[in-house]
Amino acid sequence: MPTILALDTFDVRFPTSRDLDGSDAMNPDPDYSAAYVRLVTSDPQLTGHGFVFTIGRGNDVQTAAIAALSYLVVGRDVQDVVDDLGGFSRSLTSDSQLRWLGPEKGVIHMAIGAVVNAAWDLAARIAGKPVWRLISDMTPQQIVDLIDFRYLTDALTPAEALEILQRAEPTRQTRIDDLLERGYPAYTTSPGWLGYSDEKMVGLLQQAVEDGYRIIKMKVGLHLEDDRRRLGLARAAVDPGVRIAVDANQRWGVDEAIEWMNALGQFDIAWIEEPTSPDDVLGHAAIRAGITPIPVSTGEHTQNRVVFKQLLQAGSVDLIQIDAARVGGVNENLAILLLAAKFGVPVYPHAGGVGLCELVQHLAMADYVAISTSMDDRAIEFVDHLHEHFVTPTVIRRARYLPPTDPGFSAEIKPASRVDHLFPDGAVWRELATLDAAAAAGDTAGDAAAEDDRVRSGRSIEQESGVHS
Amino acid sequence: MPTILALDTFDVRFPTSRDLDGSDAMNPDPDYSAAYVRLVTSDPQLTGHGFVFTIGRGNDVQTAAIAALSYLVVGRDVQDVVDDLGGFSRSLTSDSQLRWLGPEKGVIHMAIGAVVNAAWDLAARIAGKPVWRLISDMTPQQIVDLIDFRYLTDALTPAEALEILQRAEPTRQTRIDDLLERGYPAYTTSPGWLGYSDEKMVGLLQQAVEDGYRIIKMKVGLHLEDDRRRLGLARAAVDPGVRIAVDANQRWGVDEAIEWMNALGQFDIAWIEEPTSPDDVLGHAAIRAGITPIPVSTGEHTQNRVVFKQLLQAGSVDLIQIDAARVGGVNENLAILLLAAKFGVPVYPHAGGVGLCELVQHLAMADYVAISTSMDDRAIEFVDHLHEHFVTPTVIRRARYLPPTDPGFSAEIKPASRVDHLFPDGAVWRELATLDAAAAAGDTAGDAAAEDDRVRSGRSIEQESGVHS
Repeated sequence: MPTILALDTFDVRFPTSRDLDGSDAMNPDPDYSAAYVRLVTSDPQLTGHGFVFTIGRGNDVQTAAIAALSYLVVGRDVQDVVDDLGGFSRSLTSDSQLRWLGPEKGVIHMAIGAVVNAAWDLAARIAGKPVWRLISDMTPQQIVDLIDFRYLTDALTPAEALEILQRAEPTRQTRIDDLLERGYPAYTTSPGWLGYSDEKMVGLLQQAVEDGYRIIKMKVGLHLEDDRRRLGLARAAVDPGVRIAVDANQRWGVDEAIEWMNALGQFDIAWIEEPTSPDDVLGHAAIRAGITPIPVSTGEHTQNRVVFKQLLQAGSVDLIQIDAARVGGVNENLAILLLAAKFGVPVYPHAGGVGLCELVQHLAMADYVAISTSMDDRAIEFVDHLHEHFVTPTVIRRARYLPPTDPGFSAEIKPASRVDHLFPDGAVWRELATLDAAAAAGDTAGDAAAEDDRVRSGRSIEQESGVHS
Repeated sequence: MPTILALDTFDVRFPTSRDLDGSDAMNPDPDYSAAYVRLVTSDPQLTGHGFVFTIGRGNDVQTAAIAALSYLVVGRDVQDVVDDLGGFSRSLTSDSQLRWLGPEKGVIHMAIGAVVNAAWDLAARIAGKPVWRLISDMTPQQIVDLIDFRYLTDALTPAEALEILQRAEPTRQTRIDDLLERGYPAYTTSPGWLGYSDEKMVGLLQQAVEDGYRIIKMKVGLHLEDDRRRLGLARAAVDPGVRIAVDANQRWGVDEAIEWMNALGQFDIAWIEEPTSPDDVLGHAAIRAGITPIPVSTGEHTQNRVVFKQLLQAGSVDLIQIDAARVGGVNENLAILLLAAKFGVPVYPHAGGVGLCELVQHLAMADYVAISTSMDDRAIEFVDHLHEHFVTPTVIRRARYLPPTDPGFSAEIKPASRVDHLFPDGAVWRELATLDAAAAAGDTAGDAAAEDDRVRSGRSIEQESGVHS
């Protein structure tokens, strides 16, 4: 059996800020990026892939954090790793010195998640199955053994987790067949970015409904009047059966969230996502109580299972998002899915970005087969963006994710895309630097002309820039 | 006025794991380290110093995160920065792309804290005052303007903060005089590390009492019977008026914490610190309810003001620790101190490590002068370790911190110490590598001899290693 020879990292960035895709109330100019990791084994046919999604600056820090895990990984026997993915995951989260940087949150925890996910990619490739199917074929006890129950047992014990899994076990095959036939429901955020014009938004909304989407998510939170206008246009553009969710991306304080959302009550909101700080368990509970009956949700920035546990214990949320690249990998997401099942809260996985759709579909499908047993009141976010860079991109048919069939975790970025988008020296970034330099040279001439105009018209530069505030 | 020319970073590590100083239930072998930052200005006499404390591996990741902030800092006018430290701090926490790596937690947030603290060092040097005195001389409104109230106003509004500060303002000078005369109370953790023998522990306890300490903290949480034995010895070694706190460093789940601490009830515990995950607001509340009347505390790993807010809102704690190098710098710590004052919860600042005593004394003293107005039921942790590496080390007299008098934040590590402890190429680490290589060569010979013994006695290597499990 092979050993892990190297943990290679790559700072891969896509220049998405140039067209305002992905703009929201807190993230006006993201460059969707992947801090990418490759576990190279002594078998030339076997490589594991994983990544952390970031939105540009700091992707180098994230890459450095992944590289810092190298000493825990390189030299390991691949069979040992894939036979005990629970132990592997715990060996990363419990390194006594690295733990100080979290513990289990932020940069170091996302790095662990990427490496754990790359190990799952290895495991699934060896098994010749997609990850969702690998999990679906494990025994309930094997799944329980994947999970670190530290800090969880006051809400979910291993015995309770086992019971949830055992209850689902006899009927797994029915749901596998169902998935293979129908796929898993998707919802879309593509029409809803704040940077889009009203016309572009309405066009995209109508297109989304034509494509079969029944839930659409809009970004809100920058200006209340804009939100009212955009939601009015959106409601008019689609039939009343289409659910419209909104997402504030952590823009508000607790009181502001309550006031703002009550002012949007007329638009029949499917849920309000990230109304405030992702760390504010009690704040979400207060918001939920203050805006009844609008459902409250969070999760894409929820740092770990301990915070998810509390969101459920405190009744802070009506539904949750999970994110495949924020917490400590597949293992911790299974813990979160089991917690959600225990508390009876549906999961609408977060996706978009770079490759998040590719990853999280596996988790949602495994959840359906082995844990929650339900696709009702559930859907995976879908954004039709950057999939062309993946070796096995998501397949969407009539607003449903079709189950991946290739072995692995669908995490592999095409080698050419990876190389071209390396930051800052890949071809794409070198070309942009050249264009920017040329534009800057042009701008300098333009600025001088504009300055002449201002001097002539008597307006100051200060007055001029006030236009944009 | 000068500008900031450069943000230099240094990976500085002290090989403390060699003697088990600092060992506890979760951190058996720390190498106390500083991810160190220097803000170099165009005035050769003016440099700002700051750092993140880590315990070894990962200090390079932390250093990379500080370096990633360079683009937000270099080129700024120093006067602009020190005149609006609130705006400076917010400009770092609100960078839309870097924010994704937290938000406001873990590696990226600690990096921001180090840079913000270095800016405070600059401001205090320019003012010719120590930081505690710089804060003490600000108006209440100036202090309020330092704080980011985002996500706080449901617990503390700017008006409430202003009122707390205004109430304390007229009597500030009395407390400044009091501090200058008496200093601020300290407590000690030096005798309590898990790696020490009973004899060493008892000797250090008796020494601590002779030195004037009235609160001593012991590490617990690895083996209950050891904790009972050590606490019994500790109680017998000191007079009944000496308070003994215990610290589990996040070792337990909620139920386990309740059971364990109730089994230690007889030892008159001053507080139990970090009984469980620092993220578990509701868990701390459950533990507190389950072990009444033992006081509960946490804070050294509490990631930001949003989690502190909830600990206070939920009644999870009887007291809190603050840490000078975990959250977003002086500004966020002022927010936390104001929250604690609002909720009437005393603060026992966390210190030790590298330079944490040096930094946090300023915050505790500013709190006494301008916010809480009390030194009752309060003390700053003190560990007599590594102070010799600082240009202006803490001064302790009869178990009290004497107020720093030199301008700045006491954060500057002596240049020679910094250079010698650079990892991995400083003189100290090169020497250790040489010694380790020599020892390994010796061990190999020793291993071969032991192997011969095992072969002769018929024992296998597997049996042998079982002895250590």
